[in-house]
Amino acid sequence: MIWFTENWTENVSFSVKATEVKRIISKYQEILILDTVEFGKMLVLDGLVQTTEKDEFIYHEMLAHPPLILHPKPEKVLIIGGGDGGTVREVLKHSTVNEVHLCEIDEEVIIASQKYFPTISEKLSDPKVKIFIEDGNEFLREKIDYYDVIIMDSSDPVGASEVLFKEDFYLKVKKSLKKDGIMVAQTESPMLQERYFSNAYREIRKVFKNVGVYLAFIPTYPSGMWSFTIASDMIDVTNTQTNRSKVKELKTKYFCDSIYACLFSLPKFVSDILQK
Amino acid sequence: MIWFTENWTENVSFSVKATEVKRIISKYQEILILDTVEFGKMLVLDGLVQTTEKDEFIYHEMLAHPPLILHPKPEKVLIIGGGDGGTVREVLKHSTVNEVHLCEIDEEVIIASQKYFPTISEKLSDPKVKIFIEDGNEFLREKIDYYDVIIMDSSDPVGASEVLFKEDFYLKVKKSLKKDGIMVAQTESPMLQERYFSNAYREIRKVFKNVGVYLAFIPTYPSGMWSFTIASDMIDVTNTQTNRSKVKELKTKYFCDSIYACLFSLPKFVSDILQK
Repeated sequence: MIWFTENWTENVSFSVKATEVKRIISKYQEILILDTVEFGKMLVLDGLVQTTEKDEFIYHEMLAHPPLILHPKPEKVLIIGGGDGGTVREVLKHSTVNEVHLCEIDEEVIIASQKYFPTISEKLSDPKVKIFIEDGNEFLREKIDYYDVIIMDSSDPVGASEVLFKEDFYLKVKKSLKKDGIMVAQTESPMLQERYFSNAYREIRKVFKNVGVYLAFIPTYPSGMWSFTIASDMIDVTNTQTNRSKVKELKTKYFCDSIYACLFSLPKFVSDILQK
Repeated sequence: MIWFTENWTENVSFSVKATEVKRIISKYQEILILDTVEFGKMLVLDGLVQTTEKDEFIYHEMLAHPPLILHPKPEKVLIIGGGDGGTVREVLKHSTVNEVHLCEIDEEVIIASQKYFPTISEKLSDPKVKIFIEDGNEFLREKIDYYDVIIMDSSDPVGASEVLFKEDFYLKVKKSLKKDGIMVAQTESPMLQERYFSNAYREIRKVFKNVGVYLAFIPTYPSGMWSFTIASDMIDVTNTQTNRSKVKELKTKYFCDSIYACLFSLPKFVSDILQK
């Protein structure tokens, strides 16, 4: 029997039983595709679980829908990372969106997702979607005042993705957004990666006037408690009384009106980390 | 180096590194006390993590405070299980409480907690607390129309605790409560133990008119997504506009006004399980 183990920290690990493993070595990383018993197919990059068939809806819905609901009329959306396609699928549930750019550095992730994760990658071939195989950090230089929403669907802030968690990068994100644009990023676990989490929040706060942090339960990510940071200069991104009627039109499994209304309800220790 | 592993299901496991292990075999179960690197001291009963110094505040606060806030004036409280003492400590933060009964079947759990977990067990010796080493199911027969709040701080619904998740047991709980009494129970993970979770909810619904389910992030429990079910005949336990001023008086690390206000905000798939 195969067991795959991810080290959540040096001192905590998470293991899943699998019946089959495929391994691809790309220019950037090791890509594993596991057939797990509990979570269905699982995508692993450099040893870190990225997505599973059973719980991927949580991460992708919670990353995509808050900014797209809070924006009054999102039309042009950029996703940095997200080569599996799950975020694209959620973004396209918003009928105002007419152009989605996906900037993924590693083409092999897209190819693997299209081959092994058809329910996640299904919308990558939608005519509204344009895929760029580029470094997100470089790509942003070319687009000024262009996007309504930019979604940072990146891997953890180590290796190739480290630069995506710094002030310089968020400044570029801001330039690429229209004035009333919104950005959102996955920002790690406040429980097991407190330093990454609080650093990301602090760097984003340096760049944007309005910043909010929200959480979601993601069983296959370290600690199961995952954070997202959303920011905008013009839009009050923590006012979830905005555009509530749009939520009911979405077909989702996690995000819903009651999750939206309470999006910024945080446990006290998480609010305390942000106030440090 | 020692690694302790809990099998969350047959196909998923969670492991922590430890520097020391103590093992006690009681009349009822195997008790392990681990010195873990990530979570501090950890209490394990029959292979299942019960509590850790690092994250115990989450479970104990979220189990104790919702019923004690929702009740207008809780004075007499019964805790079934909870031999580690963490729930007692939280209950005693409410100044109206003048009598706490703790009914724990296994005295060795109390002894181990007093010896190895002083910050968790510190209030077990409070003069308001009376400890009964008894089977919770038997103990309830003796007390009729007595308690304001009954807290089911039990281990998982297997072995000795199985009976604590059945309709017959909840009927006894109801008889032991005053008419405006409230009960709360930990009811497992909706993600990895959906059947236990939905069964507990269904059994409680058969007995009480008003029932609510809420969640908390608990990194050391299966999936990190943990559920609690709260119920009462007379009190609308889902109205978290009630007694909000009492929340601000509590010294807590997880539970707070914004968590209370949004207590019953559930992800759509969890609400869907409850409506089945």
